[in-house]
Amino acid sequence: MEPVYVVGVGMTPFGVLEDSILELAERASHEAIMDADAAEQTFDRFVVGSQNPDEFTGLGHLSTQLADLIGIVPAGATRVETGPSSGSSAFESAFSFVSAGLSDLALVVGVEKMSSVERSEASRILSKMMSYENETKYGATPVALAAMVARRYMHEYGLTRDELSLVPVKAHRNGARNPLAHFQKEVTVEKVNTSRVVAHPLTLYDSCPTSDGAAAIVLASERIVKNLGIRDRSVQVLGVGHATDFHAVQHRLSLTSMNATVVAAERAYAMANLGPSDIDLFELHDAFSILELINMEDVGMTNPGMAIDMIKDGATEVDGMTPVNPTGGLKARGHPTGATGVAQIRDAVVQIREEAPRGLQTASPEVVLTHNIGGFGNNMVVSILGSSSR
Amino acid sequence: MEPVYVVGVGMTPFGVLEDSILELAERASHEAIMDADAAEQTFDRFVVGSQNPDEFTGLGHLSTQLADLIGIVPAGATRVETGPSSGSSAFESAFSFVSAGLSDLALVVGVEKMSSVERSEASRILSKMMSYENETKYGATPVALAAMVARRYMHEYGLTRDELSLVPVKAHRNGARNPLAHFQKEVTVEKVNTSRVVAHPLTLYDSCPTSDGAAAIVLASERIVKNLGIRDRSVQVLGVGHATDFHAVQHRLSLTSMNATVVAAERAYAMANLGPSDIDLFELHDAFSILELINMEDVGMTNPGMAIDMIKDGATEVDGMTPVNPTGGLKARGHPTGATGVAQIRDAVVQIREEAPRGLQTASPEVVLTHNIGGFGNNMVVSILGSSSR
Repeated sequence: MEPVYVVGVGMTPFGVLEDSILELAERASHEAIMDADAAEQTFDRFVVGSQNPDEFTGLGHLSTQLADLIGIVPAGATRVETGPSSGSSAFESAFSFVSAGLSDLALVVGVEKMSSVERSEASRILSKMMSYENETKYGATPVALAAMVARRYMHEYGLTRDELSLVPVKAHRNGARNPLAHFQKEVTVEKVNTSRVVAHPLTLYDSCPTSDGAAAIVLASERIVKNLGIRDRSVQVLGVGHATDFHAVQHRLSLTSMNATVVAAERAYAMANLGPSDIDLFELHDAFSILELINMEDVGMTNPGMAIDMIKDGATEVDGMTPVNPTGGLKARGHPTGATGVAQIRDAVVQIREEAPRGLQTASPEVVLTHNIGGFGNNMVVSILGSSSR
Repeated sequence: MEPVYVVGVGMTPFGVLEDSILELAERASHEAIMDADAAEQTFDRFVVGSQNPDEFTGLGHLSTQLADLIGIVPAGATRVETGPSSGSSAFESAFSFVSAGLSDLALVVGVEKMSSVERSEASRILSKMMSYENETKYGATPVALAAMVARRYMHEYGLTRDELSLVPVKAHRNGARNPLAHFQKEVTVEKVNTSRVVAHPLTLYDSCPTSDGAAAIVLASERIVKNLGIRDRSVQVLGVGHATDFHAVQHRLSLTSMNATVVAAERAYAMANLGPSDIDLFELHDAFSILELINMEDVGMTNPGMAIDMIKDGATEVDGMTPVNPTGGLKARGHPTGATGVAQIRDAVVQIREEAPRGLQTASPEVVLTHNIGGFGNNMVVSILGSSSR
């Protein structure tokens, strides 16, 4: 296994945007290539993470189209899809090519353009991530499953509605300082509590938006890092873990812990030879507020039922001991599904390089963990990145 | 780079089938797992190759659904898409995981279910592989581009209609003996010449069908091959190359040679440390008859314009010096797009193990090359497989 480095990052704003899916991917990619100072280098590998460009935009064959548009033909190009974790899986795929010695310089772009279709059509497309036979057929939606999970968690651990609201309040507080975030305004506990109920007990502010956007990273081998003399700005990929769970929620062991996260995290920690206490900063999937709490517990930050204490203590704030989602998470940064996993890696790298926006830079993080969910509690990818100088 | 072995293969019949996309993938996968004698082993990786399950069947999130259905949760699962070469790219992705030491035992399944939608809808879905701005907008279709290529090839090299017809005649002769082939009957030169013109000079019999079907393979590391004691039946992956070209045909260097094939083949030969003369058997993409000739030349079997001579000499027949597509190719075996690349690998392994159907076994091939096309002359993957005992 060869060492693999992130040597460049790029990202468009997330939100409801005018740009086409191709323009978004191209913009983020060029920013990452320029950031890596690699415009004159030969990319031998290109991986696109996108959940469903065909149905969201009518465009297909994205990897080939983009290789041409971005200008890296004849690089071998693929698209990787694992639902909303597609960007993380694209990163993992490119990591495996460089790690195997099959690639020296790889471009990864995650992109989704979700605003071109009606809201009902977007819901139809997104609900495919669930089990038709066990869930969709009976009218279940992702937020309905999240509500069920939230109720069970409240029952088991005594979490209150006011406490749960602290999660989106933190997300929006961070998003308000992130110029690339979909939502850049703060909300209060009262506003979260009293906004429209989507699936009781979850309200509008417990859910992430559907967004447009793209993020890109450049991965390089040891040889390239040496040749380009860019070790200072390089961030090493220390571990990657990926796991699935039973497709239908009712077939799983627990409603309040997601086994695929536990296994993916174990695999990533084992590869990195690190444990939860070694992580300085966490980027976790918070498409629904309750998931941030569950994911904190499943990646080993704290014990079951205890995550809310860390939030109340301020431990997960930007200036806390172990910040979680300092750039707003899926909730406020936005969730263009295929882009999210790559944006998490990008934001982790920006934090390690200490280049975060004013008010969002955490205290010199050296090791960052990112976690993304592909279905409802399924197809999880966990990655661990570390400063090259640590 | 760790050595990687194919230790099991499976395949459903190709054709217009009753089974759902999930049933097809499950059936091929279980056959491959049983063939590898790996039912009691733990798969740590699962890769699905499928071009467009969402639009062809309405089902999405295939990798997660199938990991559960096949019974290999919590294996990390992804879907890889590169248009019609999706199966080859899925194979390549799993190869990279095992090659990097990130996986010990990986399942790859290629699947497509194309017959559930109307023919016009299938054409719309498939035409996305072309450039909208330069081709589709003006009414071009894949077969129209193939016809343009055929006319140019005829102009440059003097190929006649009768000669071109020898390609589908050979494909159908082989398909007639392949119990899994979509078309199992022979055709004559006259029948090819006089069948319905689809895009002059190409007729119905110059084109592959749209099919349903699945193929699967099991990839294993050295450690697994040793532990299971299955080296005798293992086939080693010697080289894999992948390359793109400019998206629109008009932007490319040539109409009668495809640079992405040339580059992908160079990369695969370099990795395998072999050349065209070392290959005993070729599985080439022949979705349109003219492509078999061009691909023979681009992978280095012969010089530009000379491929037809090898076909006329019988060199590419089952009992020839360098057989091409002994199980019928895309033309007769059928072309469920995502399945094709995995079926090529499966058929190569079956040939190396000397287990081909009666009348289709070639003379003890030790090294086999497979080649697949993802768009129209774009996103090519070339793989080279070799007998472990050679």
